[in-house]
Amino acid sequence: MSAVGSGHPRGAGRVRMTPDGRREQLLDLGVRLLSTRSVDELSIDMLAEEAGISRGLLYHYFGNKRDFHRAVVRKAADDLIRVTAPPAEGEPLERLATSLEAYVDYVMANYEGYASLVRGAGSGNADLLEIYEEARAALTDRIFETRTDGVADGRPLLDVLGVADTPATRLMVRGWAAMTEDVVLTWVRDPGGVDKRDLLAMLAAALPGVLPGVLPGALPDA
Amino acid sequence: MSAVGSGHPRGAGRVRMTPDGRREQLLDLGVRLLSTRSVDELSIDMLAEEAGISRGLLYHYFGNKRDFHRAVVRKAADDLIRVTAPPAEGEPLERLATSLEAYVDYVMANYEGYASLVRGAGSGNADLLEIYEEARAALTDRIFETRTDGVADGRPLLDVLGVADTPATRLMVRGWAAMTEDVVLTWVRDPGGVDKRDLLAMLAAALPGVLPGVLPGALPDA
Repeated sequence: MSAVGSGHPRGAGRVRMTPDGRREQLLDLGVRLLSTRSVDELSIDMLAEEAGISRGLLYHYFGNKRDFHRAVVRKAADDLIRVTAPPAEGEPLERLATSLEAYVDYVMANYEGYASLVRGAGSGNADLLEIYEEARAALTDRIFETRTDGVADGRPLLDVLGVADTPATRLMVRGWAAMTEDVVLTWVRDPGGVDKRDLLAMLAAALPGVLPGVLPGALPDA
Repeated sequence: MSAVGSGHPRGAGRVRMTPDGRREQLLDLGVRLLSTRSVDELSIDMLAEEAGISRGLLYHYFGNKRDFHRAVVRKAADDLIRVTAPPAEGEPLERLATSLEAYVDYVMANYEGYASLVRGAGSGNADLLEIYEEARAALTDRIFETRTDGVADGRPLLDVLGVADTPATRLMVRGWAAMTEDVVLTWVRDPGGVDKRDLLAMLAAALPGVLPGVLPGALPDA
């Protein structure tokens, strides 16, 4: 059990934190708890016990149960967006592959919380749906973006594939993201003998596979 | 308002029905009501009013609200499976295209009820999840099945594509179904200028597009 509250000194290295810093620390703890629990299972009581502080203090930081859930889930979604950020190195297709692997690793490490976010969004919970849609948009928008931060090839992945950015393309990229989510959640529950490298290769190849008009020479193996 | 109850004669053509026949007729009415409503919005009161019979009689047929919802949603799912049955004519890929078009037409005509089934299953409602999984399995199993009812080419679609039936293939076919569902629901809400023919062509082409190891000569355009 970790202790971040003022009543539980952690020894010589402990530093007095600002309220914002304390709130961030509590959020991090909430996100860790969420990795092995659904959003519904995550309670303020549980966080208070893990943090070694009072429920009253937690209500001071998070207002109410709904605000608490929203803050933890948003932080978890921000973490997902951050850890799946494509690297600066490599060709656009390699960067996609790296990002996909980070996504699979994230779902493996945070299955319960992530699956409950997807379920909650699917059920129409307005808070979870908003966070989920923002996260999914952040993940898929990368496919359309020009990188201007000095990477070797900053063209949008679509340009590399020779595909125009049209409503039809947007629809299918969204569909590819839905497929990826479903396949990864299914695979984490039951890999069924499919190894991670094959999974990643199939998902990466599926993006050009679902887009209309990919240039024959655009793919390394084509 | 239609009348199926004994208190509301429909004129000279009316025939006395068996209890099973009456139940089927009420279910059909429930399915029609569900086409423009979510499962949650569909009530026994509403069905009683539309059918012109008493709530008591409906409880006689359906037991309770949960049984009523389950019976109507199962009937709706059976209708979906039936109307999307691939035709006896044509090559396997053409049959897939025909089946896909029937699926899109079904979702267009029954958006509210179908979207609420998908949402309900996503939220973890056990009844809806069971019906939804059965329906999705029925739709995707067709891709693996040999047709023995005298069609010109009864080979499974996978054979035509030259793809082996492996756990990896099963995973990606499932992913294709998830993609198709998401894309069609999104498109029905907002076509965004994508016409139905283009939508169908993209979804049909996406199946071989997501499967590993499709033979280059297996597709008409390849």
